[in-house]
Amino acid sequence: MTGPAEVIGRGRLEALSDGVFAIVLTLLVLELHPPHLATPDSVREAALALTALAPKFTSWVISFVTVCVIWLNHHRLMTITERIDNGLFWWNAHLLLWTSLIPFPTGLMGDYPTNPLVVSLYGIVMGLMAVSFVLIRLHLQRHPNLRRAHVDAAALRRGTVLSVLVGPLAYAACAVVAWLDVRVAFMGYAAIALYFVFPHGTHASSANES
Amino acid sequence: MTGPAEVIGRGRLEALSDGVFAIVLTLLVLELHPPHLATPDSVREAALALTALAPKFTSWVISFVTVCVIWLNHHRLMTITERIDNGLFWWNAHLLLWTSLIPFPTGLMGDYPTNPLVVSLYGIVMGLMAVSFVLIRLHLQRHPNLRRAHVDAAALRRGTVLSVLVGPLAYAACAVVAWLDVRVAFMGYAAIALYFVFPHGTHASSANES
Amino acid sequence: MTGPAEVIGRGRLEALSDGVFAIVLTLLVLELHPPHLATPDSVREAALALTALAPKFTSWVISFVTVCVIWLNHHRLMTITERIDNGLFWWNAHLLLWTSLIPFPTGLMGDYPTNPLVVSLYGIVMGLMAVSFVLIRLHLQRHPNLRRAHVDAAALRRGTVLSVLVGPLAYAACAVVAWLDVRVAFMGYAAIALYFVFPHGTHASSANES
Amino acid sequence: MTGPAEVIGRGRLEALSDGVFAIVLTLLVLELHPPHLATPDSVREAALALTALAPKFTSWVISFVTVCVIWLNHHRLMTITERIDNGLFWWNAHLLLWTSLIPFPTGLMGDYPTNPLVVSLYGIVMGLMAVSFVLIRLHLQRHPNLRRAHVDAAALRRGTVLSVLVGPLAYAACAVVAWLDVRVAFMGYAAIALYFVFPHGTHASSANES
Repeated sequence: MTGPAEVIGRGRLEALSDGVFAIVLTLLVLELHPPHLATPDSVREAALALTALAPKFTSWVISFVTVCVIWLNHHRLMTITERIDNGLFWWNAHLLLWTSLIPFPTGLMGDYPTNPLVVSLYGIVMGLMAVSFVLIRLHLQRHPNLRRAHVDAAALRRGTVLSVLVGPLAYAACAVVAWLDVRVAFMGYAAIALYFVFPHGTHASSANES
Repeated sequence: MTGPAEVIGRGRLEALSDGVFAIVLTLLVLELHPPHLATPDSVREAALALTALAPKFTSWVISFVTVCVIWLNHHRLMTITERIDNGLFWWNAHLLLWTSLIPFPTGLMGDYPTNPLVVSLYGIVMGLMAVSFVLIRLHLQRHPNLRRAHVDAAALRRGTVLSVLVGPLAYAACAVVAWLDVRVAFMGYAAIALYFVFPHGTHASSANES
Repeated sequence: MTGPAEVIGRGRLEALSDGVFAIVLTLLVLELHPPHLATPDSVREAALALTALAPKFTSWVISFVTVCVIWLNHHRLMTITERIDNGLFWWNAHLLLWTSLIPFPTGLMGDYPTNPLVVSLYGIVMGLMAVSFVLIRLHLQRHPNLRRAHVDAAALRRGTVLSVLVGPLAYAACAVVAWLDVRVAFMGYAAIALYFVFPHGTHASSANES
Repeated sequence: MTGPAEVIGRGRLEALSDGVFAIVLTLLVLELHPPHLATPDSVREAALALTALAPKFTSWVISFVTVCVIWLNHHRLMTITERIDNGLFWWNAHLLLWTSLIPFPTGLMGDYPTNPLVVSLYGIVMGLMAVSFVLIRLHLQRHPNLRRAHVDAAALRRGTVLSVLVGPLAYAACAVVAWLDVRVAFMGYAAIALYFVFPHGTHASSANES
């Protein structure tokens, strides 16, 4: 290996990343343990046990949608990437690190949805995950040789500014709000995920290629 | 990103979806916990413990076959798809959401095979999964530009009508029957899975391309 | 879909199968639970707890090697396959069903290595997995249109006969021997896996293409 | 199959290996069990429980980075490989065996970070994983027909010598140091992982192709 000259195959890096995204999507459900029923045939007991799981289901859906958004953002950044150097590999690994951690704060928030520290922690982990996208974008901005020829540098920079606003800053705001009212923070996390579901003319997480 | 104009790579979306399907297929077995034997060498105790797992094995086989059918249906819909827009991505994510949930009602039904609410819940989750296929088909019907050139629109519509009948409606019927007799509902779930194993001249879940 | 005329993409079926094989390979280790130490710093207690895991490690290695052999056999059969019809898809799914079950008898045999029924069950599941390879081969024999042009039908038939001998029959023999001496059955399972590690001039599980 | 003449598809072997790497990366987080809080709303209790997880988080990060390094090294070796024979398949499977075991010593070291045997065991498993890379390299050295045309044999040999020094020997040294001071061994494991994050002019684990 000769440092910056080494070229990492984009196909295999996408395969590794898609593998991690697919597994995180599916592992999230393992936090939904089937409840134990003292009377196996009791409809009433089953209804109560399933209703008690409502916060876990809500956490699960929010995290599931968020991981889909991560995949979309990752896909968009890959479509403007021509080559992968050592630095880009490790910024991508940094994203995978925080993404693979998501089942932990998700399970914790499902178990203790009224604990301010727990609900705040969810926002902190998601915020760090969002920071890792900003770092990937900054690396692509500083190394034009890694980008495809058609990429507009000014649009890339504008997209990075927006990705800071709706990413790390939005999650940090929710993590602070959790100490005032956990329900508002919960809704904030859902709102951030939903924001990315609907396409925007100038999407903060995209490279604004066209 | 410029909303509807964005094109999502079909190869990577198939890789993500195949990853989720493969992981769900394999995670289902984690619900089959090796039983604890008080006398490690007792053949009699091992035989009783394994026999007691029969409902879990049955649930596992039905869900395994169902996830294979989901893969087949997904594969067929992808073969008539030319491009993927933001909407199709999210209808596909909606399918992955319900598919990744399958281990939960499967494990629950294996634990409490005689509880009407539990057996009914299995049909409700499977029905919502089947609804997500109908929504993907409706999206493809409304956006001819996403389809391959050779696709027959009338056959696509006929297939959608059939997919409502043998999908959501069949599962809803079983979910209702579970309140009368859980065994009949169990057999209904198995019958729906088996129906899709054998090819039909006019398959409800296919696009009837030829 | 029009039954036999439908063509299933080999690439996506290989991706689904490779996903299942990779996940089973990695899930096997989840049966190796880190032991609990009453005195966290005790070297003696840690040494005893790890030594007690020896049967679990042995089961894990045998199953790991066996799943690698399954991958190799699957890869060989795919190299002689030109097209995939509905029947071949389901025989392949049947193989994935038994393969995805492997963590269950592996964990059980690791927990109760001296229980004849448990050690016998391992051989029965592995034998059924081996039967599924025979069924895939018979399907390819009966449908020459699914095979690549260069495949020698006589060699394919000879390979099928051999695959019955070293597959289902060998596992059935070990499953019977387990009732006489579990250690001999254990060694038999290891011997079957090792047999396939080393290449043979006329390999029972291959199609003898050349 | 005719032994050495058989050619195994590199694409599918990479897919299988990437699958295992992605799953190990993601399974590592399953060792971080959400803690149980006696008082669900207690910030103090949550803070204490999360602080107590610090050794598990540290083990998790070290192992995550190490598996990323394994992926990078594997990728580099694949780029100099033209064909895969039976021997290379099994040396690769040997690497996957030790890689898939990593969650076990990682979880154990997170649970008992002050137990010398446990901390030493982590180095032993990682050392055996590193040995498997040396064995893959030696196989490529002995079989020039498996290598791409442009590969410099002398550089390959030099890389192998270096890979012994910073791989098995470094891990063996840490495994010995663990008996004197577990904290130094911990830092040693982190240092080995970090060494590979930053590119070197003559990288021990690469083939020094240019």
